Amino acid sequence: MIIDIHGHYTTAPEALATWRNRQVAAIGNAAEAPKVSDLKISDDELRETIERNQLRVMRERGIDLTVFSPRASFMAHHIGDFNVSSTWAAICNDLCYRVGQLFPEHFVPAAMLPQSPGVDPATCIPELVRSIEQLGNVAINLNPDPSGGHWTSPPLSDRIWYPIYEKMVEYDVPAMVHVSTSCNDCFHTTGAHYLNADTTAFMQLLTADLFKDFPTLRFVIPHGGGAVPYHWGRFRGLAQELRKPVIEEHLLNNVFFDTCVYHQPGIDLLTRVIPVGNILFASEMIGAVRGIDPRTGHYFDDTKRYIDAADMEPATRHQVYEGNARRVYPRLDAQLKARGL
Amino acid sequence: MIIDIHGHYTTAPEALATWRNRQVAAIGNAAEAPKVSDLKISDDELRETIERNQLRVMRERGIDLTVFSPRASFMAHHIGDFNVSSTWAAICNDLCYRVGQLFPEHFVPAAMLPQSPGVDPATCIPELVRSIEQLGNVAINLNPDPSGGHWTSPPLSDRIWYPIYEKMVEYDVPAMVHVSTSCNDCFHTTGAHYLNADTTAFMQLLTADLFKDFPTLRFVIPHGGGAVPYHWGRFRGLAQELRKPVIEEHLLNNVFFDTCVYHQPGIDLLTRVIPVGNILFASEMIGAVRGIDPRTGHYFDDTKRYIDAADMEPATRHQVYEGNARRVYPRLDAQLKARGL
Repeated sequence: MIIDIHGHYTTAPEALATWRNRQVAAIGNAAEAPKVSDLKISDDELRETIERNQLRVMRERGIDLTVFSPRASFMAHHIGDFNVSSTWAAICNDLCYRVGQLFPEHFVPAAMLPQSPGVDPATCIPELVRSIEQLGNVAINLNPDPSGGHWTSPPLSDRIWYPIYEKMVEYDVPAMVHVSTSCNDCFHTTGAHYLNADTTAFMQLLTADLFKDFPTLRFVIPHGGGAVPYHWGRFRGLAQELRKPVIEEHLLNNVFFDTCVYHQPGIDLLTRVIPVGNILFASEMIGAVRGIDPRTGHYFDDTKRYIDAADMEPATRHQVYEGNARRVYPRLDAQLKARGL
Repeated sequence: MIIDIHGHYTTAPEALATWRNRQVAAIGNAAEAPKVSDLKISDDELRETIERNQLRVMRERGIDLTVFSPRASFMAHHIGDFNVSSTWAAICNDLCYRVGQLFPEHFVPAAMLPQSPGVDPATCIPELVRSIEQLGNVAINLNPDPSGGHWTSPPLSDRIWYPIYEKMVEYDVPAMVHVSTSCNDCFHTTGAHYLNADTTAFMQLLTADLFKDFPTLRFVIPHGGGAVPYHWGRFRGLAQELRKPVIEEHLLNNVFFDTCVYHQPGIDLLTRVIPVGNILFASEMIGAVRGIDPRTGHYFDDTKRYIDAADMEPATRHQVYEGNARRVYPRLDAQLKARGL
């Protein structure tokens, strides 16, 4: 089985964006705010957006199942207050849940949280609990910078995040560390902010001792870990300077990297440097880079081709495609086992 | 000849830090401010800090010459106002100039600028001109984020930077895009902020058309280009989505990467992905990562070992070690030629 642990609902029906635009326009003017019940999207509409897009491409590429969360750039936690984010997160999580119900063999939901800049992350707990207990989510996306590029929250090692970690440990769900749209002109969202956040989060974890407090807490760093594997020697050297244990002991029981790296040399570096148990297959398709590479004739984000071409044993490739995902996402594993898989 | 284009005076005599501490302590209280003439560092002191440190290591590793600029993390443009930065930049540039005078075969200076957050970059012109005309600097360091991790300046493509670019073109000097200390708790200075800035700057250039206005302007992105070469497919794909020319045409006549990547697989990726004409040897020694890699028994930052072990022809290696530096830094080339080299 091939599991893609990083997919977003980037192709939701237009009605979702229309509703969101109304919500945003009504900020500060509650009487104008749309009701949740104003958003009407039928199962047929959901089915169509998935069958024409993600599921079509999954079939073309041979991907069996995607861990599917709300569109990352649309989380936009910097917009409005907690109530705005809370309503929006619930709507988006409900849609991914419904996609999972419509295509139970192919999509399993992961939740966005109703984060809001300057608001205690503990306020996210009710939606986190609902997404797991009622919607069957197997993971969450955690935004280390709800300000959208101004980086006003404390590092991920700060105790302010602990209520979320306690719930993650209780439910045994991992978090993908994933920012949203940049509203800072310095940072292009998918070309800079996403990669910077990956690198930043890893270094926040490296300088801290968070996993002493939470030995079973697990983070997935997307986009191949940002700059981290390419600079693995730098990070190993910094860990040594900071008198931390070697990174493998210090972080790699708890931190994992996906394979959203869109060319063969990048995947080759990733699989050469990072222990195989820490690499989880993903493509973030249909996402930031949708075009065909004229040099190969294949889609940039067809990461399965790169993994298939990488120098690894079949058993190793199986770990990357399935084994690691089932270990890092135990609730996914449980759902698959319940279906006899 | 082996030229290291990225060295900082990280080992300056303690008197420099003492003077700086007095300057910082006196901010808002001009009567307490130290005079420039209070800083007394003899040639012997300079000689000793260099001979014991950078020059010793250069000799051990076989590096002939270093482009030498003030300590990056000490630029700290976020501290004080323009006058504080201006005095500090002049002092630091004078010291690097003196090191070059003491060791003309081994050190050639590059200048820091007196940047200050929210202050027009054009205010840096007098020090830029002085550093080139009077001190013989062959390059400048340009900080895209003088706020120190709050990213409050416009992108490098903004016209606010144009006065600096006009002088760079006039004098035919490149700029290394190099941030300083992070004062944002989210970003570790050398483990996150530096790499993020490299990635951010590259993406700022990719989304713009700056080199249409300045066809001969040249930037060096340090630390191996941050996350860029590892995600080269992502950047190529984003350029395509943004309907820009292919990156090679769009940016690679003007943008170069150094080799400050502290392990063999990273250097192998860099030299596999980036055209050889865009790779300049550097080690940023003695810098962020000073330890010995227990897996190899050699210093993490001994990048010459990685280049020597990389799969490349001798002529290619010569480009990386010398040829590209002489092309990208014409004032360095002129100084070498004047010495018959």
